Amino acid sequence: METESQHAPGVHYLIELSEVPREFLVDAHLLERTLEGCARRGGAQVIQTLLHQYSPQGLSGVVIIAESHLAVHTWPELDYAAVDIFTCGKEEIAEAIYQQILKAFTPRKYALKKLSRGPQALRNREAEP
Amino acid sequence: METESQHAPGVHYLIELSEVPREFLVDAHLLERTLEGCARRGGAQVIQTLLHQYSPQGLSGVVIIAESHLAVHTWPELDYAAVDIFTCGKEEIAEAIYQQILKAFTPRKYALKKLSRGPQALRNREAEP
Repeated sequence: METESQHAPGVHYLIELSEVPREFLVDAHLLERTLEGCARRGGAQVIQTLLHQYSPQGLSGVVIIAESHLAVHTWPELDYAAVDIFTCGKEEIAEAIYQQILKAFTPRKYALKKLSRGPQALRNREAEP
Repeated sequence: METESQHAPGVHYLIELSEVPREFLVDAHLLERTLEGCARRGGAQVIQTLLHQYSPQGLSGVVIIAESHLAVHTWPELDYAAVDIFTCGKEEIAEAIYQQILKAFTPRKYALKKLSRGPQALRNREAEP
């Protein structure tokens, strides 16, 4: 688990979920309900949700929340989903949504990377004047 | 600039833009047109776009593309925008969209972090059986 800085307008959780019950990876309505439920139970305010079903398989779901966004992409053929939680300033909400995601999706394997986002990140990365 | 692995279903570009012309940070229609234009010129297929205007200021925009998603959050008070490009498998499309983003938004300062996403990322991060 990594955190670059505690002084950001945004905190970004990048989550890899593996060995997830297949229905979450293929059922768009279930994924939508699950994502919105995780956001709300984590303390976020859901504004709007987009779901897209790829052919032949795979889903993308994005939830705009008052605190920024939640995004998921699924690869049923790999038994895998990538989840992003981006919240402006409030790491406790990102953390709470993350805990809800683990509880709802019940992955057998998962990984988390935390990054701070904001102008201060320019100091730590490739930057050009 | 960092790349964890070349063997991922997804590549994720995390971009910090600073000192951007103010209209991109406050004008939802301009931001929507600009994001969709960058996606198309970068070779992606735009499926659906969501824009949200925060009060008193700030925008969130998410574009679902056939290759995954593009997301932006703006902080006009900080003269800053966070941009994410997530493309499944095709790093050349993420790179092309990134170049279009720089060309369109003309940030005076910017930073890029590249991450691979996928089950293989579990090997490099916190994981639990």
